[in-house]
Amino acid sequence: MIKESNKTSSKRNQSKEGLTVKKTGNFSEWYTQVIEKAEIVDLRLGIKGFITIRPWGTFMIEKLYDIFEKELQDKGHLPVIMPSVIPESNLKKEASHIQGFTPEVFWLKTEENEERLALRPTSETVFTPMFALWVRSHRDLPLKLYQRGSVFRYDTKATRPLIRGREFQWIECHDAFATKKEAEAQVQEDIDTTKKILYEQLGIPFLAMKRPSWDKFAGAEYTIGSDVLMPDGKLIQQPSTHFMGQRFSKVFNAKFKTEEDKEDYLYTTAYGPAMSRILASIISTHGDDSGLVLPFSISPIQAVIIPIYTTKNKSKILKYAEEILRRLKAHEIIAKIDSGEDYTPGWKFHEWELKGVPFRIEIGEKELRGKKFTLFTRDIGKKISASLIKLSSIRKLGEFYDKRLKTKADNYMKGKIVNCKTKENIKKAMKEGKIARVNFCSVGKDGEKCAEHVEKEIGAEVRGTLADKNEKPLGKCVICNTRANAVVYVAKSY
Amino acid sequence: MIKESNKTSSKRNQSKEGLTVKKTGNFSEWYTQVIEKAEIVDLRLGIKGFITIRPWGTFMIEKLYDIFEKELQDKGHLPVIMPSVIPESNLKKEASHIQGFTPEVFWLKTEENEERLALRPTSETVFTPMFALWVRSHRDLPLKLYQRGSVFRYDTKATRPLIRGREFQWIECHDAFATKKEAEAQVQEDIDTTKKILYEQLGIPFLAMKRPSWDKFAGAEYTIGSDVLMPDGKLIQQPSTHFMGQRFSKVFNAKFKTEEDKEDYLYTTAYGPAMSRILASIISTHGDDSGLVLPFSISPIQAVIIPIYTTKNKSKILKYAEEILRRLKAHEIIAKIDSGEDYTPGWKFHEWELKGVPFRIEIGEKELRGKKFTLFTRDIGKKISASLIKLSSIRKLGEFYDKRLKTKADNYMKGKIVNCKTKENIKKAMKEGKIARVNFCSVGKDGEKCAEHVEKEIGAEVRGTLADKNEKPLGKCVICNTRANAVVYVAKSY
Repeated sequence: MIKESNKTSSKRNQSKEGLTVKKTGNFSEWYTQVIEKAEIVDLRLGIKGFITIRPWGTFMIEKLYDIFEKELQDKGHLPVIMPSVIPESNLKKEASHIQGFTPEVFWLKTEENEERLALRPTSETVFTPMFALWVRSHRDLPLKLYQRGSVFRYDTKATRPLIRGREFQWIECHDAFATKKEAEAQVQEDIDTTKKILYEQLGIPFLAMKRPSWDKFAGAEYTIGSDVLMPDGKLIQQPSTHFMGQRFSKVFNAKFKTEEDKEDYLYTTAYGPAMSRILASIISTHGDDSGLVLPFSISPIQAVIIPIYTTKNKSKILKYAEEILRRLKAHEIIAKIDSGEDYTPGWKFHEWELKGVPFRIEIGEKELRGKKFTLFTRDIGKKISASLIKLSSIRKLGEFYDKRLKTKADNYMKGKIVNCKTKENIKKAMKEGKIARVNFCSVGKDGEKCAEHVEKEIGAEVRGTLADKNEKPLGKCVICNTRANAVVYVAKSY
Repeated sequence: MIKESNKTSSKRNQSKEGLTVKKTGNFSEWYTQVIEKAEIVDLRLGIKGFITIRPWGTFMIEKLYDIFEKELQDKGHLPVIMPSVIPESNLKKEASHIQGFTPEVFWLKTEENEERLALRPTSETVFTPMFALWVRSHRDLPLKLYQRGSVFRYDTKATRPLIRGREFQWIECHDAFATKKEAEAQVQEDIDTTKKILYEQLGIPFLAMKRPSWDKFAGAEYTIGSDVLMPDGKLIQQPSTHFMGQRFSKVFNAKFKTEEDKEDYLYTTAYGPAMSRILASIISTHGDDSGLVLPFSISPIQAVIIPIYTTKNKSKILKYAEEILRRLKAHEIIAKIDSGEDYTPGWKFHEWELKGVPFRIEIGEKELRGKKFTLFTRDIGKKISASLIKLSSIRKLGEFYDKRLKTKADNYMKGKIVNCKTKENIKKAMKEGKIARVNFCSVGKDGEKCAEHVEKEIGAEVRGTLADKNEKPLGKCVICNTRANAVVYVAKSY
């Protein structure tokens, strides 16, 4: 529920300067500065891995929830609310699952006569036992559920706001099917959902990667992640989807009666888009040296009106601003007037550019007289003069704006994937912040040694094979020189 | 985000019977049965105080979040996301706060070199330090924030689904002001918000009660709770609002520059509506012997269409059902067709009555021929025949329906408050499931002894004085017989 507010930007009185680094020059420092200066997050509570997300960031996270929830419901998912805690005995049922997650679990201190509880790192081990109760026959299938909320991972590595933390805001879908085929079709649907929202709507290109066996979700038969290239040349995993097969249903005895009246175990899948992390990619992909550049479709304010006035013409100009606001609202544009006197128009221009608002509408004496307005567009940094009637086309301009962001991101990706036949080539690609496409011995267990080699010697990761294209390798493994069975993508990563 | 889904009712194949007790006969058992049989909650994960809320309940909790968030934003609140954990040092800053909450805190096990973290029971101790950073001058005020999410209380008493648990879904508002007057006006605004949503929209009458000093929120100067009478004669506290004065701002050093350029501490307030608990009151207030009776404005399905067909006329009837669905959707009614063949129409009638859907539209050969439909209305249990054109008035009928629920609840309250001059009268009132209005010595510290007497001897609670009316006592304290300084309300409670 994102709506217009009179006060989305708080606390103007702090002396505030713009970004002191360029995005291309020092992305890491740019990111650190922009998320704080644009008032997305605040780290000053000082709790490792736990952050405060301010209104400007929260509006967008809520909007992302809305977008995903609508899409998931349209695709037949129903919302549920599961406990935030998981009993130890549930968590330990699936051996590889607990092995993968135990080191990262926050345990709650409970009384001695009560079972130990973990803060949920993910919820397969409470969804699957409920499937066992809710599904009796093939007629109850498919059963597609999701919940929104926080999950917790006691990560001891370095944390990064919105990217890697100990608490993050996500949606987890857990679906149950009668057949392997339907479950695998769900995995495909999940990739489509990611594509529709992350790429089509938000303009963030990604590679759907089937992870190598050593890098799949703990407990899954296979995992498909979506890798987004950050401006520093490192990949970040966005929504991933997991085919669990019957692994969880077997340990939780989640059976059903088939059409042939036989008993079988459910096939399950899981899909987990993290709103906070997607916000990090929006910020990183579209931002520029002046700050955020927010997609029109999710910006908490789509158009900000800046009245430029003197003591003499103040009331006339403010009245004109109100008229423009009214017209924008009639076209369902989320707009606000920034009429405060504590700051100059120039200060305000700078502030709203930093915050990434797509359109700025400037009005002064000249505009008032000509029944016009001056329109500044954030991504291209250009001003035009337009007559009042043109306010009705702001939505259309917003769609063009979003398309431009997407095209720009697509262009950025061009040439970023390079074929590498040697280790030296891979190293060079890594240095240039690119993704290496290489022939590799295997993405099964027997390839893990070569992957470790890549990690140790090149400081990069084997991210997997393309999920939506079956690429046939020609030649030998770039590391061990045996026959290659896979074309994999190698990159540095978060 | 509540939207129509094709499959809000899952798992029909379980042999299911209706309620085996009457609401008036045995409310406690009725509640236990209805929340499980109407598929609101599932307790079978078996974690004390943590429940699974199924789609039918989750849709309503999400709708309640939407309603409250919209109202709060309209009143100038901005959303934030704070950590779900609170460092021990923050929690311990305000002495009476920690004294009140410590016994109820879940602690996380962290490494020895890290500070102990509590799962938030409430978030004053992270909001106030952020106020200290975000507010510099009176120009930054008021600052009104809220967050939605779970809070946790390690309650060792008996738990009750949606009513008393170890995790519950709420919104917490934390607001900061320059003056006491403005902060106290906020408390009034919060009561108005409760009234607008709980009473006006959802039809749940309540008493706004200023709590006695011994029963206020730990750390507050005073607390105003909203007490709803449950069918078993016990009061349940719904949203409460707290005036903190400068207590929290002083311990967190949250100062600001006044208009006179002096330094002062912020005045803060907190307001906490719990969605899960409000759902419990909706269920309890409006339900009847056949199951839930959901308000039209929040029911996940507002009208269910039941086609009644034979093999011969099936396709015609289903086509007619589709046409009705289309028309209802055009009027923005959330509707669905229940056309499955596994169950008889009678079974379906029973099922959707149990689930509380306001309107049922039955169509068979007769309706098809006459271009009519049969409309069953849940609360009054009556059927009428209407021509197709009348579908356009379902929304209007829904508004009448909601008004009837409210009127019925108001009528139920009539005569429920009785003036009691003696202990025996109070006892009699308690036995009859009523609220006793009595003269009482004091709601300050010195009245606590008499309140303890009430609790021990009568098994009831002194809930406080009316918040919106200054009632002058005439006479003596019903317990200690000294001069009465307050008119208090005594009742049993959850």
